[in-house]
Amino acid sequence: MDYYNRFNINVDVDDIIVTTGGSEAVLFAFMACLDPGDEIIVPEPAYANYMAFAISAGAKIVTIPSSIEEGFALPPVEKFEALITPRTKGILICNPNNPTGYLYTQKEMNLIRDIVKKYDLFLFSDEVYREYCYTGAPYISAFHLPGIEEQVVLIDSVSKRYSECGIRIGALITKHKELKKNVMKFCQARLSPPLLGQIVAEASIDTSSEYMLMTYNEYVERRKFLIDGINRIPGCYTPIPMGAFYTVVSLPVDDADKFCEWCLREFEYQGATVFMAPASGFYTTPGMGKNEVRMAYVLNKDDLAQALAVLTEALKTYPGRTI
Amino acid sequence: MDYYNRFNINVDVDDIIVTTGGSEAVLFAFMACLDPGDEIIVPEPAYANYMAFAISAGAKIVTIPSSIEEGFALPPVEKFEALITPRTKGILICNPNNPTGYLYTQKEMNLIRDIVKKYDLFLFSDEVYREYCYTGAPYISAFHLPGIEEQVVLIDSVSKRYSECGIRIGALITKHKELKKNVMKFCQARLSPPLLGQIVAEASIDTSSEYMLMTYNEYVERRKFLIDGINRIPGCYTPIPMGAFYTVVSLPVDDADKFCEWCLREFEYQGATVFMAPASGFYTTPGMGKNEVRMAYVLNKDDLAQALAVLTEALKTYPGRTI
Repeated sequence: MDYYNRFNINVDVDDIIVTTGGSEAVLFAFMACLDPGDEIIVPEPAYANYMAFAISAGAKIVTIPSSIEEGFALPPVEKFEALITPRTKGILICNPNNPTGYLYTQKEMNLIRDIVKKYDLFLFSDEVYREYCYTGAPYISAFHLPGIEEQVVLIDSVSKRYSECGIRIGALITKHKELKKNVMKFCQARLSPPLLGQIVAEASIDTSSEYMLMTYNEYVERRKFLIDGINRIPGCYTPIPMGAFYTVVSLPVDDADKFCEWCLREFEYQGATVFMAPASGFYTTPGMGKNEVRMAYVLNKDDLAQALAVLTEALKTYPGRTI
Repeated sequence: MDYYNRFNINVDVDDIIVTTGGSEAVLFAFMACLDPGDEIIVPEPAYANYMAFAISAGAKIVTIPSSIEEGFALPPVEKFEALITPRTKGILICNPNNPTGYLYTQKEMNLIRDIVKKYDLFLFSDEVYREYCYTGAPYISAFHLPGIEEQVVLIDSVSKRYSECGIRIGALITKHKELKKNVMKFCQARLSPPLLGQIVAEASIDTSSEYMLMTYNEYVERRKFLIDGINRIPGCYTPIPMGAFYTVVSLPVDDADKFCEWCLREFEYQGATVFMAPASGFYTTPGMGKNEVRMAYVLNKDDLAQALAVLTEALKTYPGRTI
């Protein structure tokens, strides 16, 4: 509770359902809110596993492209409205965003709220990176949006906040009474989230603000280092991500999928290789993100420097380079 | 591997997919093997969560009643065949059984194999209690049945074996290549089973045979103590369970559901209450198990003695008693 109060997120203990990672929270949210054939609108690029969980629930993800040229800003509201059908049950956002690092503005969040309200949708809001916002402005949670409090399904996790991925502790947070009851049915079937993880996660909530600030500052440094480094490589471009610890980069290559594979299998520089996630996996629209990769700045600066050096050389050598 | 070799279960490392508890193994087995509308035949009474996972997969559990009068033996093969439809995709057994403690005989296992083979079904075999068989005969796994090795989907867990429920580590074991690939898709979506649980589970496999024997002997003692005690209470009857650590008991009451609730809310004896699981939740056929409860002999003998004393008094007092 104290944790959420720090972000002015007004939720009660009863609103929080602990899950086996954020992953299970997404799955249970979909299973409990969606019937087979129902649709959710998701701005793309998006975390690929949303699709997997939607398929598990028999639901359909309908994507709206956002583009690197526009810094991955929220697409215009008309584009959302054009996709709404009688089967549309919700909008899903990840804020701050994986893979783009985009942070929705107050204006964008208000637009989302208006659509959610107008069409009586669920707003699935994956906020697992909320600690890592670099704009200086206060974090805007879906729960800060007035008038849709009952429609918000917040996805949370300790994985990113405390670097505890393997712990597998997350949460589904909702004020919707009927939904809570239905989610609990799935919870009861799978018995409990991992006990040891629960103990670790509970202890982690008391992590000192000094440690959190140190981590934050470190990500700020790494972000600056990586973004500056990338944008100095000829033909490479990335917007400045405002949150999380990812950025999407366009590369001067024919096909980022092939390039990433080539970097691992065919290339090394000074005994090192570089591993990037091709962005095509984050898009559902065919052809989108073809020359883009997602980079994570979770390594320390020395390792990032080495990665940048390997990438620079790789781009000089790769047979499919376009400059 | 060594662990399974001890039971002459011939599986390779590649056949074993670690899951978040046996629960997830059941869910993934259903999700990967069954389309919505497909059917699985399950002898009842059965572990209630099978139903929940089947519903999650959009599949249908079709039950064949077994009865306390016949000691919960496998129903005759004709009863299975009468239920097979074009939508039948598998048979599910729990062996040794939760809730009955029944252990299938070689003859019964052969009958199951014949049906599975004849109709080309999956055999989902939940064997999480295999350490606790009290007949002295070697344990018969579904993987011991010749000719259906590719059709067996074994569900396993460390929860019972090492008293590690909260650890949430189980396994789905199959030699079916296509199925393995499909299960891995669900695994990749949910990321990893809990890390700390994996470490604990791996260490637990090296538990000394002395400790395992001590635990086994303790359950043998508790079983004898509970079964003898129950069968001495007027109007109570339970068969002798041959495995696991449960038994189903018929009680001289109008409605075991009401009685169990009454025992918790309205009755106490010498400052103690007794908590039992009404068996109706383990049946899907309406009316079955109405005067039955499941008892677990996981308490030590002193506590079991107290539970028996409370139950004896409760049955003298309960307004809905039938003797």
